[in-house]
Amino acid sequence: MAQTQEASKTAGKPIRCRAAVARKAGEPLVIEEITVAPPKARELRVRVLCSALCFSDIHFWRLEEPHGYYPRIFGHETVGVVESVGEGVEDVMVGDTVIPSFLAYCGECPDCISIKSNQCSKLRFELSPYIRDGTSRFSDAKGETIYHFGYTSGFSVGAAWKTADVEAGSTVAIFGLGVIGLAVAEGARLRGAKTIIGVDLNPDKVEIGKKFGITHFINPKELGDKPASEVILGMTDGLGADYCFECVGLPSLSQEAFACCRKGWGKTIILGVDKPDSKFILNSLVNNHSGKTITGVQYGGLKPNIDIAILGKRYLDKELQLDLFVTHEIKLEDINKAFKLLIEGKCLRTVIWMDQERASADGVTFNEL
Amino acid sequence: MAQTQEASKTAGKPIRCRAAVARKAGEPLVIEEITVAPPKARELRVRVLCSALCFSDIHFWRLEEPHGYYPRIFGHETVGVVESVGEGVEDVMVGDTVIPSFLAYCGECPDCISIKSNQCSKLRFELSPYIRDGTSRFSDAKGETIYHFGYTSGFSVGAAWKTADVEAGSTVAIFGLGVIGLAVAEGARLRGAKTIIGVDLNPDKVEIGKKFGITHFINPKELGDKPASEVILGMTDGLGADYCFECVGLPSLSQEAFACCRKGWGKTIILGVDKPDSKFILNSLVNNHSGKTITGVQYGGLKPNIDIAILGKRYLDKELQLDLFVTHEIKLEDINKAFKLLIEGKCLRTVIWMDQERASADGVTFNEL
Repeated sequence: MAQTQEASKTAGKPIRCRAAVARKAGEPLVIEEITVAPPKARELRVRVLCSALCFSDIHFWRLEEPHGYYPRIFGHETVGVVESVGEGVEDVMVGDTVIPSFLAYCGECPDCISIKSNQCSKLRFELSPYIRDGTSRFSDAKGETIYHFGYTSGFSVGAAWKTADVEAGSTVAIFGLGVIGLAVAEGARLRGAKTIIGVDLNPDKVEIGKKFGITHFINPKELGDKPASEVILGMTDGLGADYCFECVGLPSLSQEAFACCRKGWGKTIILGVDKPDSKFILNSLVNNHSGKTITGVQYGGLKPNIDIAILGKRYLDKELQLDLFVTHEIKLEDINKAFKLLIEGKCLRTVIWMDQERASADGVTFNEL
Repeated sequence: MAQTQEASKTAGKPIRCRAAVARKAGEPLVIEEITVAPPKARELRVRVLCSALCFSDIHFWRLEEPHGYYPRIFGHETVGVVESVGEGVEDVMVGDTVIPSFLAYCGECPDCISIKSNQCSKLRFELSPYIRDGTSRFSDAKGETIYHFGYTSGFSVGAAWKTADVEAGSTVAIFGLGVIGLAVAEGARLRGAKTIIGVDLNPDKVEIGKKFGITHFINPKELGDKPASEVILGMTDGLGADYCFECVGLPSLSQEAFACCRKGWGKTIILGVDKPDSKFILNSLVNNHSGKTITGVQYGGLKPNIDIAILGKRYLDKELQLDLFVTHEIKLEDINKAFKLLIEGKCLRTVIWMDQERASADGVTFNEL
């Protein structure tokens, strides 16, 4: 159905808006007025309604140059309304509510056509401080460039569904019970896993984990020198868990996950985002001939244009528990407090509202931090 | 069908026979008369007719202590006749011709029942210098213990079939065109792969490779500083090969294979046997979130008691080319020359006949080395 784009008043013009700008690695964000250039061909300019803070934001915000780029605007778990569109945009209308995705979906390449991949070949994912054409649309009050950022992990619920294809009755081990790990637990629960073992250093995660289907909890702090993988092997007759998920971003934890992964058919799935240049080391002889598999995926293996709608429906049908992930709602000015909460493990997702008045009118109750 | 074991004359008694004994790491084998103790419960004593030499034998024969054990009898690609049986053996009869397998198959555990695994959970594989009960049946003329050895790679034709499940029309890259790599090519050819890329330093492998279905050949020696993975990426629109097989046992080659493995759905399968304690290193961030999978299997993922019979039938039906693998046939006394041939890459499989007179009577023509 071809519709005609309704031109917004600001179409083709730069706009000014507020943003939380990271000026230096690891330092508090600064609320500034910035300029956003008009969208080029096949681009959208989106007015953000709210955004959640993810540990990937913190991860990259901590990076010194050359891996870190400053000044930069973080945030990638976002909902917004299309403000204006670039040339050739036909499938999204001005005024549409959208969930921006860092993974592209052209719908035509071998990957988009195949059920086996979510890695579009035409518009490939790159860890870039720019958008697709290698430039930025953001500039500050002095006219200096501000860098972009796009990385997401909030759809890891799909990893249990798409990548691991968890079977009913199986045993799942999850290393790290942040939002990624809890989303995996939620996915494993929906797939009918019988045993879901959560591993986390934070004892508060015992109760939170139960809500998402965790049946057994291991706190490595309570194990002395014994690695968690040994405990999991002990719980599984020395065989290992059918599916192991690394949800932190530590290569040592990937090794732990692989070590207690079921010989013969076990799958280890790496979801955590680790530091650039970090290495994952396997002991080749012992592990690599055992029939175990290791893989890493983005977006929980989901195809953005197709699978997010399926998750949305399952949420509306009250099968998928998404509300449990939102522990705090705050206004933009409190964003640095949201960083602190997440770093200290005291929240799951904090939703940051851009327009406090509008959100209040819609019934949002803000947390005092 | 329960049959009664026909007791052989030597049942329950030690026997004496000739063997090629490795006395020191990397030194020529010595043909000696050894003593083989009678089989214990659930064991067979097998009179070997012939044995092929595999690079895994050479690999372990080169190992100094503590990984190497001497004196030791190598050889694991063998055909023999059951000479006598231990208590409780009912499924194999004295006089049966058998192919010994280092992978067990109890037929009852979750792995043996599942189509997903060939790693029996009841009788697990261990890299041991003994047999199952932790003792040796071999001793030399002085009564001193000689160690056992059991490792096989000759069934890697199954890796394309069982582990990778290669699809018709796909692209396959094979690193190393020894018998393992050529067996993978043969498997990929039978599965209908469209492009089969072979990588080897030995230019003689171009012609040999063609016989097994290799469609493209890369010799890294001719590439200067450019890695073979880059050439393969170039041949596949920068996307990579759908299935990559490491068939040498070098961690660096596993990394090469993984580097040119198709993003989104590519599978890297490690078949080569590398040194104990060697490490396989992945660049976590770049590679692990791309949907690529890496796995390592023994026996090409085949279940010994079931799948070898299927391969045997396909050989008899002239679908599977096994004769091409046998390039030389020799007598036991020439075994050290067979080591040299294999190390120099001048043979595929050399079959070593234990009883020269009997083999000649059966029509075997021996090679003069």
